[in-house]
Amino acid sequence: MSTTNPTVSREIRLASRPDGWPTAENFSLVEAQLPELEDGQILVRNIAISVDPYMRGRMNDVKSYLPPFQIGAPLDGGAVGEVIASKSPDRAVGDVVVHGLGWREYAVVDAATAGPADTSIAPATAYLGALGMTGLTAYAGLTAVAEFKEGDTVFVSGAAGAVGSLVGQIAKLLGAKRVIGSAGSPAKVARLLELGFDAAFNYHDGSVTELLAAAAPEGIDVYFDNVGGDHLEAAINSMNPGGRIALCGAISQYNTTEKPTAPHNLAAVIGKGLTLRGFLVGGYRHLGPEFRTHMASWLADNKIEWDETIVEGLENAPQAFIDLMRGANTGKMVVTL
Amino acid sequence: MSTTNPTVSREIRLASRPDGWPTAENFSLVEAQLPELEDGQILVRNIAISVDPYMRGRMNDVKSYLPPFQIGAPLDGGAVGEVIASKSPDRAVGDVVVHGLGWREYAVVDAATAGPADTSIAPATAYLGALGMTGLTAYAGLTAVAEFKEGDTVFVSGAAGAVGSLVGQIAKLLGAKRVIGSAGSPAKVARLLELGFDAAFNYHDGSVTELLAAAAPEGIDVYFDNVGGDHLEAAINSMNPGGRIALCGAISQYNTTEKPTAPHNLAAVIGKGLTLRGFLVGGYRHLGPEFRTHMASWLADNKIEWDETIVEGLENAPQAFIDLMRGANTGKMVVTL
Repeated sequence: MSTTNPTVSREIRLASRPDGWPTAENFSLVEAQLPELEDGQILVRNIAISVDPYMRGRMNDVKSYLPPFQIGAPLDGGAVGEVIASKSPDRAVGDVVVHGLGWREYAVVDAATAGPADTSIAPATAYLGALGMTGLTAYAGLTAVAEFKEGDTVFVSGAAGAVGSLVGQIAKLLGAKRVIGSAGSPAKVARLLELGFDAAFNYHDGSVTELLAAAAPEGIDVYFDNVGGDHLEAAINSMNPGGRIALCGAISQYNTTEKPTAPHNLAAVIGKGLTLRGFLVGGYRHLGPEFRTHMASWLADNKIEWDETIVEGLENAPQAFIDLMRGANTGKMVVTL
Repeated sequence: MSTTNPTVSREIRLASRPDGWPTAENFSLVEAQLPELEDGQILVRNIAISVDPYMRGRMNDVKSYLPPFQIGAPLDGGAVGEVIASKSPDRAVGDVVVHGLGWREYAVVDAATAGPADTSIAPATAYLGALGMTGLTAYAGLTAVAEFKEGDTVFVSGAAGAVGSLVGQIAKLLGAKRVIGSAGSPAKVARLLELGFDAAFNYHDGSVTELLAAAAPEGIDVYFDNVGGDHLEAAINSMNPGGRIALCGAISQYNTTEKPTAPHNLAAVIGKGLTLRGFLVGGYRHLGPEFRTHMASWLADNKIEWDETIVEGLENAPQAFIDLMRGANTGKMVVTL
């Protein structure tokens, strides 16, 4: 390890647990000593870090599929960066890698947990988005979880978000009859139509049930749920018999301190023979190779567009996360360093 | 058709739609003229008729998977009876058949819609229960809808009911690691333990979530839901990752005039990667032959017990249905004529 390498790194820590909506006071920016590289490790200078809705859940002290973030410890999450020192035969200085130690400038990473990011195919930030876990979430959720079939009509909520915008475009590429998206502003709705959605609506414009019924007069076969709450209830109402729902997220519920809302029409799930299936992308990593083959080809052919909302500077990462929770992003929210 | 055959039949009609719990005033007993037999039809003297929870939904004026019962028209539903006249080459006088025109003494039935009931295998009423749609509901719901696998721990609600008691016994026969049932009285709980359930609890004894967690310390893999409401929420709490829920019924909700309750822990459906699938037995008729082969063999070997709560007399059918809604039955509620 060269002596010119940094020995300290700025990082974002969880200062306190949010009660409802997160605020700047829940985060602290701290300069921390970097540990010595051990065998099998690499030192990575992060180029960009990911802020994602699921991180909100880890800020609560609740046992879940991922352990909660600890107060006073750095946050973590997806990141892409350049290897600047290596004690691993598998990664060389200059390699660009994707790994799980975001929210910091420099990271000491076990090389076995870092994946390659081929920047000749797409820019580094794409590996946090369309070519990364975001894209795999969209692809696996649509094809495996919701068992999408050619000719299906698909509804996606939070459709201007990182995952949602990919779900809609992938559905069209795979032969959907009709793709409908919901979003939270007129500009986002306009963007969905540009991306090839057949219909889109602003969920602030009225009852989601009525807006969806108008956009899908022949019903829907697949619903990809990023929102939960009244969107889920509306989708169940519009579902055709045998329809499938992939439950990916429920951003409408993450910051509420009240009891989460729930769909009151589960009787229709019985009557229509619907399937609701929750999933985490971690359970679908086996689809990664198939996904990357498809996505690299779609990107090369300009058949998929992916939007990024880029914020610069580690010190602005907490605000980027807070803004993400409020839906300030179109497409993938990324913080570049 | 012999002139000794009856020309009138007593039948139960829907007098008015229940508002919440059904009452005797919602039904009327009427003597009606029987139509002349046409070619392809049979005249059946009903031996026994079925009253089932799903019929409550058809008493509402709501479009659903089955059309609502009409006010002033006879109710219908499962029945088993003896052919007393036939204009069909497929059914002879003396045959015992299962058909869909219950709630009446005599029925003119299209022979194509009637199935055989072999009373050398089991008594006629079994064809409304263990060997009929009730049994197929249990079998298909467990094996196909909930994708039961050997070694699974299974929870069944309403387990002393017609479907539930079969689900538990079939699960044990197919190699469940542990089967847990809930019911509404100490006598029903005792009966479940006699039937081979590994654990059972009375849901009146406390929080269903706590009672289930105590009965299933290692969690559950499959939940067969006959009840809905807090049972569904409790099951989601106790589910192991990858667990499957078959939504068969929601008797806790059928008679409420308030907004149906809903599970508030759908976030756990995402985190644990659970599948909830609603179903109607009509969608699984293709499993009928496989089911009947299994069930006939289990019955012949005395490996399955099925309970019946028998009420005598067509005039008592409305009260039998009302009592069924209150859980007065153990096993299948049948009205013999």
